[in-house]
Amino acid sequence: MLSSSIVAFALKPRLLPALSRTATTTKPAVVQARIANLVHRNMSTFKQENHKLLVIPGPIEVTDEVLYANATPPLGHTSPDFIPYFGDAIRLTREVVYTTTGQPFLIAGSGTLGWDQVAANLIEPGESVLLLNSGYFGDSFADCLRAYGAQVDEIRADFGKSATQAELEQALKAGKKYKAVAFTHVDTSTAVLADAKMIGETVKRLSPESLVFLDGVCSIASEEIRFDDWNIDVVIGASQKGLGAPPGLSVVIASQKALQVVESRKAPIAGFYSSWKRWLPIMKAYEAGTPAYFATPPVNLIRAYHASLTQILRSDVSLQDRFQLHKDAAQRIRQAAKDLGLKLVPTDEYNTANGLSAIYLPEGLGVADVVPRLSQKGVVITGGIHKVNKDKYFRIGHMGTTVVDKSRGDIDKVITVLKESLQEALESKKKASPLQKSTGRPTFGQSTYPRSIAPASARARL
Amino acid sequence: MLSSSIVAFALKPRLLPALSRTATTTKPAVVQARIANLVHRNMSTFKQENHKLLVIPGPIEVTDEVLYANATPPLGHTSPDFIPYFGDAIRLTREVVYTTTGQPFLIAGSGTLGWDQVAANLIEPGESVLLLNSGYFGDSFADCLRAYGAQVDEIRADFGKSATQAELEQALKAGKKYKAVAFTHVDTSTAVLADAKMIGETVKRLSPESLVFLDGVCSIASEEIRFDDWNIDVVIGASQKGLGAPPGLSVVIASQKALQVVESRKAPIAGFYSSWKRWLPIMKAYEAGTPAYFATPPVNLIRAYHASLTQILRSDVSLQDRFQLHKDAAQRIRQAAKDLGLKLVPTDEYNTANGLSAIYLPEGLGVADVVPRLSQKGVVITGGIHKVNKDKYFRIGHMGTTVVDKSRGDIDKVITVLKESLQEALESKKKASPLQKSTGRPTFGQSTYPRSIAPASARARL
Repeated sequence: MLSSSIVAFALKPRLLPALSRTATTTKPAVVQARIANLVHRNMSTFKQENHKLLVIPGPIEVTDEVLYANATPPLGHTSPDFIPYFGDAIRLTREVVYTTTGQPFLIAGSGTLGWDQVAANLIEPGESVLLLNSGYFGDSFADCLRAYGAQVDEIRADFGKSATQAELEQALKAGKKYKAVAFTHVDTSTAVLADAKMIGETVKRLSPESLVFLDGVCSIASEEIRFDDWNIDVVIGASQKGLGAPPGLSVVIASQKALQVVESRKAPIAGFYSSWKRWLPIMKAYEAGTPAYFATPPVNLIRAYHASLTQILRSDVSLQDRFQLHKDAAQRIRQAAKDLGLKLVPTDEYNTANGLSAIYLPEGLGVADVVPRLSQKGVVITGGIHKVNKDKYFRIGHMGTTVVDKSRGDIDKVITVLKESLQEALESKKKASPLQKSTGRPTFGQSTYPRSIAPASARARL
Repeated sequence: MLSSSIVAFALKPRLLPALSRTATTTKPAVVQARIANLVHRNMSTFKQENHKLLVIPGPIEVTDEVLYANATPPLGHTSPDFIPYFGDAIRLTREVVYTTTGQPFLIAGSGTLGWDQVAANLIEPGESVLLLNSGYFGDSFADCLRAYGAQVDEIRADFGKSATQAELEQALKAGKKYKAVAFTHVDTSTAVLADAKMIGETVKRLSPESLVFLDGVCSIASEEIRFDDWNIDVVIGASQKGLGAPPGLSVVIASQKALQVVESRKAPIAGFYSSWKRWLPIMKAYEAGTPAYFATPPVNLIRAYHASLTQILRSDVSLQDRFQLHKDAAQRIRQAAKDLGLKLVPTDEYNTANGLSAIYLPEGLGVADVVPRLSQKGVVITGGIHKVNKDKYFRIGHMGTTVVDKSRGDIDKVITVLKESLQEALESKKKASPLQKSTGRPTFGQSTYPRSIAPASARARL
């Protein structure tokens, strides 16, 4: 048993509040395990390797504590040493989305597996789903639902836009019965933020039997999600974005209403690995402090995820503070884009994500002209991922420790390097083709059109 | 660029042959990436935490190099820095099962996801599968196949036994057309080893159209698997056993014949995340050195898996040597059990696994009397997992670095601690109930019945 003085010495100061706050709400044994997690013998000497700043929309930068947890010797998945980490991770996951009754499922897999879980457990062949599509990931979510036999109706927003309340109301009033309404909270391809509260409340008002599926892979822990208050039935997440851990863990939260739908379905669940009937007893057992087996959990990644959740939820920066920090960082990136004369992909302020920016390149530059230059300067961003426009814009992730730990200076670095790289890329282009003429579309350094009065020629580009 | 002298200094001696051997068969850029992987800036100072010796049948002990790779800062999944690791991991996976044409699929998930891949891609609803069942994991494999609509016929071996060639021949000659023959190579619940070569060859002879599914989760890299030579169509594996990495990566290898079956199926593939049609272009792209996206790969775990494969396949211990080391270790454990008067669960020498032992407890002792005692002495083993007998036997894993790196002394420690713990447990029982009488079944220290002449009373216990 470690003495309290060793604990105090070994813990990083910003983690200390975690323990006192935790101690009032969870059992002593659990707290002890959490302390053990934070007091690694070698943690004080572990520093991750020097590396390029990773600011794509996930995976993201993660803390030394999280990486170190990922490098702890594997624990037996049914061992008493491991159970508290898994149980805690389940409990803490609820807090991220403000639910007291939602049921987390933590399963080895990528974020994509969350779509399969929803489709396999909650939709029976032939049932209808209304999908609010705001980008590439909306398309893929629809593909997944259809692969399980769903009949999917889509409200397809124009590139850079999201479905409006009027469109949603119109669809729900058209007389068709929807088993579920699904949407991508932040589409990673466009940085478009959907109004989750509006969607959840509108569905509750006009189609109360319908389930509400929120794909939060690119929003969870970066954007506010009020699971219980907003009438959300499923949040689909993954470990490697706002949740601040390496990729490989599918994080899904289901409402009790959703679990009832599983219980009452007529067709068998369309899968084995994704079956909540098989996983539910496992999650309940670990949360109750006992082991159970269906498939081997990714023990190291669960410890890393646990370490990240502890930092997110038990540090002196509250969850609400974190959301504000994401808004502040997003505002800084947007202002920098504006100063550079660049346009954002999302067409409106209110539906622009706070953990991710998608920004049009200046006229005449492609992704290959810019992204490698930033990489050479130590900043990894990425290009577009939408089939039509993917070479016309780039994306910068601003999530997790990059945003929350200001002492890192990550956002400053991103802005500085972006500016330098664009300047160099444009100069390089000018040298290569000195006689190239303007097409009338916005170029680097030139003021962008106010979005609301952009002429058709500029809007067509969206 | 690192100079060769730095490389030579930083590499552990046993990894050096890897590079020269590799250099002759893969592209320079790939080799350079592999060197970069091995020459971590901080690797020389990283040592995993002191911990209990983990000798359950997976997760297992992993090396410092593997854990350190798991703690490298996440790389972007489409970044040029990451692609060679993924490409290499795919190539090296083939070598583990001696195939030149098999197609590896490396997907975030547990070993269980491999069953879903097989069932969703290769079996259409109503098709028949013959399953050779030798334990709990045979039951679960059958459950998974049935969940996808397969009609499963089982050859159910008695506890501790595997299907015989005569039984397999009889089933294949009965006139029913089987889409596939499936078996658990080593059933983790019983330590029973199936004769994979016999099964593959018998199917080829009597039912050449049938696919052969080998569940190798508990055998891959611990037992020889000759994929091409033995007529195997799918090997299902996972990262956390013989492959020597943390859990969370599903490792599956499919034959070209199996991929053809996917192409020619009539029903759509029964899933999205498990669809090989979606994953095949991704695996091919990464192997060709270009990125592609379907779902975010577990970048850290792939680096850890890559590090482990490099140690398995490019050290001065050949793969064939490794298999022999597993046999030697298994023999030592079996001899120790025999010296203690204990019986093994597998009833015959030829079908006893080499990476795992399942051993009956002495009369009068349950799992709870023994397993916690070993844990207190720093050795983590586990109890049974078969519904009938799970409290009557225990399991010890002997895989990976525990077996291959003899300087660790793991096997000695296991045997010593097992002996001490059993002695203490029996003495404790004697004190608690001094008048307890023998039932005639084997007890600690008493010579076991030769298996072939065990009386019915003893055999019934199996």
